[in-house]
Amino acid sequence: MASRKSGSLLLSGAKALSKQHGFAASAANTRSTQILPGFASPCSFSRYSYSSSAEGQKKILGVFFAAHEYAKNPEFLGCVENALGIREWLESKGHKYVVTSDKDGPNSELDKELADAHILITTPFHPAYITKERLAKAKNLELLVTAGVGSDHIDLRAAADKGLTVSEVTGSNVTSVAEDEVLRVLTLVRNFAPGWKQVNEGGWNVAAVVHHAYDLIDRTVGTVGGGRIGQEVMQRLKGFKLKEMLYFDRHSLSAEREKELGCKREEDLDTMLAKCDVVIVNTPLTDQTRGLFNKERIAKMKKGAYLVNNARGAIADTMAVKEACESGQLGGYGGDVWNEQPAGKDHPWRYMPNNAMTPHISGTTLDAQVTISPQFFHLNAFADCLRFFSSSVLGLLLHGWIFEFGFGF
Amino acid sequence: MASRKSGSLLLSGAKALSKQHGFAASAANTRSTQILPGFASPCSFSRYSYSSSAEGQKKILGVFFAAHEYAKNPEFLGCVENALGIREWLESKGHKYVVTSDKDGPNSELDKELADAHILITTPFHPAYITKERLAKAKNLELLVTAGVGSDHIDLRAAADKGLTVSEVTGSNVTSVAEDEVLRVLTLVRNFAPGWKQVNEGGWNVAAVVHHAYDLIDRTVGTVGGGRIGQEVMQRLKGFKLKEMLYFDRHSLSAEREKELGCKREEDLDTMLAKCDVVIVNTPLTDQTRGLFNKERIAKMKKGAYLVNNARGAIADTMAVKEACESGQLGGYGGDVWNEQPAGKDHPWRYMPNNAMTPHISGTTLDAQVTISPQFFHLNAFADCLRFFSSSVLGLLLHGWIFEFGFGF
Repeated sequence: MASRKSGSLLLSGAKALSKQHGFAASAANTRSTQILPGFASPCSFSRYSYSSSAEGQKKILGVFFAAHEYAKNPEFLGCVENALGIREWLESKGHKYVVTSDKDGPNSELDKELADAHILITTPFHPAYITKERLAKAKNLELLVTAGVGSDHIDLRAAADKGLTVSEVTGSNVTSVAEDEVLRVLTLVRNFAPGWKQVNEGGWNVAAVVHHAYDLIDRTVGTVGGGRIGQEVMQRLKGFKLKEMLYFDRHSLSAEREKELGCKREEDLDTMLAKCDVVIVNTPLTDQTRGLFNKERIAKMKKGAYLVNNARGAIADTMAVKEACESGQLGGYGGDVWNEQPAGKDHPWRYMPNNAMTPHISGTTLDAQVTISPQFFHLNAFADCLRFFSSSVLGLLLHGWIFEFGFGF
Repeated sequence: MASRKSGSLLLSGAKALSKQHGFAASAANTRSTQILPGFASPCSFSRYSYSSSAEGQKKILGVFFAAHEYAKNPEFLGCVENALGIREWLESKGHKYVVTSDKDGPNSELDKELADAHILITTPFHPAYITKERLAKAKNLELLVTAGVGSDHIDLRAAADKGLTVSEVTGSNVTSVAEDEVLRVLTLVRNFAPGWKQVNEGGWNVAAVVHHAYDLIDRTVGTVGGGRIGQEVMQRLKGFKLKEMLYFDRHSLSAEREKELGCKREEDLDTMLAKCDVVIVNTPLTDQTRGLFNKERIAKMKKGAYLVNNARGAIADTMAVKEACESGQLGGYGGDVWNEQPAGKDHPWRYMPNNAMTPHISGTTLDAQVTISPQFFHLNAFADCLRFFSSSVLGLLLHGWIFEFGFGF
């Protein structure tokens, strides 16, 4: 297929956030300092407004994975070769745009180039871990853009302390992730992957697949987080004739929305887990969610239930998940996020039974890349840099802030 | 998970068929000879009524795959070891019950035991190919029961010519197959399987997956066949915000049902195919559908579209599919049915790019097995053999007859 080349998702994402959080996207261009509810720290919105700066040329540093031979596809924007599709535009404005995939170790290209960069663009798919130490050495840095959703690879507290703005293309790949979650649920429940491996390797053993294959109908599914991805998943699962579709979130959806999605809120996480045959994680990684699915919590799940986590790997305890898959306490675990990326060759989630693991792909389909790419703004006559950056600055992701507003991206 | 152990599907299946085809299941016990619309051959319904026979002990022969170590799970009924869970019951009635997995070649156990069997039970998952020649040697044979849906492994014309009844547990695994079809659509569209293989083998290459990964939203999906499985698939896809959900069938669903499923009928197959990003096959294998997706028809599909076929392998031309996957005319092909089963080690569908193939599993989850197993009738006080067989004789599957009544199982 060709990618959809539609930018509607980003616009609707921006609108949705504006509505949800009670501020308009254009508010990001006010240069005012605001205090977010629930936090003591003042946060500057749009401290850095790119083209309105009088400082002339800026250096933008992008960190993306290398796509090698796959970069020949011009739709494949989110790689180092195609540099998010914004090189021509940035350079036409007189700015310097440097991209690299070399992000780890003390002598990385990232460290070298970050020293004098004004703007850093990163992605969750090839995360450049921006520590306090790295931030301290980035003397010119003013803005960190996450080309995707989820900026936990950045030390947000340290960024806030330095007065830096961290922005992301909120809502850009909500659909991509939600579709992938339905896929992983079905993959686990039907024991698909071992069957695929079997025939692709010349084998044929129906029993070896079927002995662990069930139907999803009449089962109970719960999402930890009823934010945008959580809601999109529930909408997609509505047609599967589940026994119950549950969500855990500190905030209730409206009765009308619950009816539309066919779901019911649970006020207590562990109470919900005890009811679920399938649990899907849809929360950001924060202090509150790190290690949320540890041994004790997994023990509270129904024996043999499935856990799908496309949110962040560190929300689940690595060894607890592995051991639960081995013991049968988990019927299987699936996700595309790992506590460190790329995952090490010896990461136990690679080799545990009943896994539906992949590299970090769910939010970066070719369709999602078109939506994520700031080129969209460019192509749609948002050529003015100010407008570009102010539109993409949809929220300052302070440590735990999204969590404070309820689960969900 | 434990299987659901609910028999509701089978009963509703029986009701649905009765309604759809205008005769009640109990009509199968009338011993009358009826002529089905559109066909010249007279067909005897329930020529054989098991426990009402005065002939005493009967020999029932079952052909199932061997589950080996997996048979230890008592829920795994559909294997030679657990013999569909009906041994105790049949033997308590004084009948002889022989099961085997050895079905191929001239000296197979099947051939040996079939010679004097009265009833043959087979499944589509480990199909015993019942040819005219085999039928000629089965002197006592009166009833052929397919423990599943789809009896194309039986020469139905030859069976009809011999006055034999062929029955199947219609509707028993509609849900299982429909869920699996959604899984395969997503697997192909998201390029999941190569990503899974990669990390399970210690690799990490996001680009190698993502370069061929799209979203399903805003795409057009069409089902060839709007029968029960087709409708269940459409219901499940409704939440995915497709551009259009189309179905091709000689019969229209009611306007109310179309609205409920969010679908639209296409009167011409090729017209529909030209619009679809994803095509799902939901027809039985008949003379009309054999080789339906040949080179010429695949060429009428959109370039890069995906084809999912859990119906029967012979509905698609083996080499045409392989070549289309290699050329990119098909973005991928997925299914669990092969033109011969088990598929040979050199079957090209095993090794073609972008395949979502497995052994024949979609209709035989543990949940489906509980529904398929005639034990259900037994457990639910349908202990009388007459009632058992008359209830499972839901229709004489004459060659092309279901097709005459419209696509769909």
